[in-house]
Amino acid sequence: MYLQVDHFGFVNTDSFQQRYLVADQFWNKDGGPIFFYTGNEGDIAWFCNNTGFMWDIAPQFKALLVFAEHRYYGESLPYGKASYKSPSKLNYLTSEQALADFAVLIRHIKESMPGAASSPVIAFGGSYGGMLASWFRMKYPNSVVGAVAASAPIWQFSGLVSCNAFTQTVTNTFKTASSQCSQNIRNVWEAINQGWQESPSDVSSIFHMCKPIKTKDDLNKFKGWIQESFTDLAMVDYPYPANFLEPLSAWPVKAACKPLSTDPLKGKELLTATFEALNYYYNYTGTTKCLNFDQEATQDLGTMGWDYQACTEMVMPTCTDGKSDMFEPSPWNFSQYADDCYKKWKVRPDLNWVTTHYGGKDLSEASNIIFSNGLLDPWSSGGVTKSQSDYVVAIVIPNGAHHLDLRSSNPDDPEDVISARKQEISLIQKWIANYRTKYHLN
Amino acid sequence: MYLQVDHFGFVNTDSFQQRYLVADQFWNKDGGPIFFYTGNEGDIAWFCNNTGFMWDIAPQFKALLVFAEHRYYGESLPYGKASYKSPSKLNYLTSEQALADFAVLIRHIKESMPGAASSPVIAFGGSYGGMLASWFRMKYPNSVVGAVAASAPIWQFSGLVSCNAFTQTVTNTFKTASSQCSQNIRNVWEAINQGWQESPSDVSSIFHMCKPIKTKDDLNKFKGWIQESFTDLAMVDYPYPANFLEPLSAWPVKAACKPLSTDPLKGKELLTATFEALNYYYNYTGTTKCLNFDQEATQDLGTMGWDYQACTEMVMPTCTDGKSDMFEPSPWNFSQYADDCYKKWKVRPDLNWVTTHYGGKDLSEASNIIFSNGLLDPWSSGGVTKSQSDYVVAIVIPNGAHHLDLRSSNPDDPEDVISARKQEISLIQKWIANYRTKYHLN
Repeated sequence: MYLQVDHFGFVNTDSFQQRYLVADQFWNKDGGPIFFYTGNEGDIAWFCNNTGFMWDIAPQFKALLVFAEHRYYGESLPYGKASYKSPSKLNYLTSEQALADFAVLIRHIKESMPGAASSPVIAFGGSYGGMLASWFRMKYPNSVVGAVAASAPIWQFSGLVSCNAFTQTVTNTFKTASSQCSQNIRNVWEAINQGWQESPSDVSSIFHMCKPIKTKDDLNKFKGWIQESFTDLAMVDYPYPANFLEPLSAWPVKAACKPLSTDPLKGKELLTATFEALNYYYNYTGTTKCLNFDQEATQDLGTMGWDYQACTEMVMPTCTDGKSDMFEPSPWNFSQYADDCYKKWKVRPDLNWVTTHYGGKDLSEASNIIFSNGLLDPWSSGGVTKSQSDYVVAIVIPNGAHHLDLRSSNPDDPEDVISARKQEISLIQKWIANYRTKYHLN
Repeated sequence: MYLQVDHFGFVNTDSFQQRYLVADQFWNKDGGPIFFYTGNEGDIAWFCNNTGFMWDIAPQFKALLVFAEHRYYGESLPYGKASYKSPSKLNYLTSEQALADFAVLIRHIKESMPGAASSPVIAFGGSYGGMLASWFRMKYPNSVVGAVAASAPIWQFSGLVSCNAFTQTVTNTFKTASSQCSQNIRNVWEAINQGWQESPSDVSSIFHMCKPIKTKDDLNKFKGWIQESFTDLAMVDYPYPANFLEPLSAWPVKAACKPLSTDPLKGKELLTATFEALNYYYNYTGTTKCLNFDQEATQDLGTMGWDYQACTEMVMPTCTDGKSDMFEPSPWNFSQYADDCYKKWKVRPDLNWVTTHYGGKDLSEASNIIFSNGLLDPWSSGGVTKSQSDYVVAIVIPNGAHHLDLRSSNPDDPEDVISARKQEISLIQKWIANYRTKYHLN
């Protein structure tokens, strides 16, 4: 449907086509609920195919499924291919505009689809999409009666959690798989530094790099890439083979840790074992010939869009200390971060806006929100893992990685995700029942 | 303080100085509450001097008083004198930006004023300021613990109340003062039309016009001006002499109605009596030599700003039918309205945005808001006059005009406004007590 590019001003009258996907085969067209996925930083088809939970429970709820694409991602580009070309065109990529899109879209659906006018709408979202789902309920309680916010790090902002909470959680996930593994990883940074000082080409060849680690800058990128790879592994530490970021076996952290789970390793042995861990992650299919530490040059719009958002509103301070986490110490440097943002996008981030606008830690006025978090998931560090009231319920999934509960049910699902989904279903039922009572619907 | 001109985008980095007035003589600097006036369409000093209720109760609450000026009004002009010069400079005049200003300002006060960090903030506002106060509580519940929204017509929007609810209320106020008066006014339009057809100059001289009613367009403006004058009279129908819009005696509707309260009048007699009513309104001090129907050319920024807002978000449909109201029938014509807006401001209004963004009629998720309405006030037609829950409380003041309860207490206050203020004080006390309990403050 066509939406205003700018919901918060009246001078720019440009409109754009927002893509949304609809599945109505389960729907009771006489007021059945609407399950509305609040799209995040990527093509909506991908989320649609990775949010099996909504499909699994749609038949029992007789629900209409709607997946709304977030502006500036997928095909919902306000200025087509030029959307990312200039700061003035990128100006409308904000969470506030995206939430307004969702509210206008829901109004449109309710007014135009026969039977939808009195349908209660439930928002679903994972990760940034989960943040949006919860904020949507907070800011537009008349658009949605409740929200399932899975792995939504709404507190991963300045002043709310410590900057290394995230890397501590990565470390815990590795420690849980093998405490020796996290110990070895903690030592690898020094081993890399030394190895590279002695012979950069040896390091490149041990790690099967597609292009050599030549400069100091390369070295930093290389180490950053390893840290990111381990972080991603923790995110996708699912109990069964999956293909979320890369195709992997069940419990991939344990699998990657295998070569690193022996006695304390040193020097070349440590480097080789670390390579094997990375090779497991990037080369599970056995078809990859070399590994590439230089992934920043991707032209994938999703990554570009999130990079812009992280350079404006979505500033999530991160740091490492090498003690409570297993990474090389690196402090949080906002002014450096801001300068980099300006270089890349000609905009400067605002550390405080998100907490001012969305209210920070106090959720006592919110209602009908489920925050679910898998404790293996690094993002749980910024999530709501304790219930805030009878109406803002936290569900913790000790054996869950990044929004495991939103995935299709699987025979290998651990008990805790099965029970989490049951609790989610029962709360959604309650929200819908309350809505029907309130409006005297049967 | 300096605020971002655009809170919802990162490309425009302009900032402007927002004016706010502070009175700390009553304040308990150790966490005493903050009473925060959400400024509306005008100079904040004027509201500060017309909101005596906040001053009257500040000592007993030991409250800090803060009056925040709304952007684009008074001295808070984002682009100085050029603020109204071009559509692109006016683009940031919206209620959403104003609410964001308030949230940033409150954060700033809490961070910079010693003792304010844990102070509960209560929003106060009247009329559009009351709408902002209630929306502020809904959208930023972490910024304010509660809101007193006096004479706030948050439902005076498309699809929520009938378009002549407003003029019906004006009529009722006149009918209450004198049913004969409203009858006579209902007849005056035809008498004017006929009189003008016979002799335009006679009509001009009967009404002591500063400039003659020459064209048909003049005639329409003239009748519009009379209708507006009666509307304003209903708004300021206070029980004691006051000077809100014009200096007037107590109960000005009754006073204005005096010449119109006899038997049904006709022709010249009716016109003369109507002039006398208007002359009472505009010439209470006896110093006005002639009356002026052509008031649209005012250069007063307040009026210009509100006109722009009414041409963008704040579209309040109005119509008259001449049956349930006392005015000449005139339908609501949105496309004409929109065209006029485009001519004046180069923008087109959006009928639906306010109800989509602020949620329309359902206030069941809101809390700690008082909606007070005087039933003599035309704006009560779009106000919340029934309590929506234990947390969204309506206070009705049968003998009250436009936010009478926000004015200083007066020996001639009717009982119902005295009891309204008592109820308001007790609810504010409750909000503050709950806040202190929640945060374990003493």
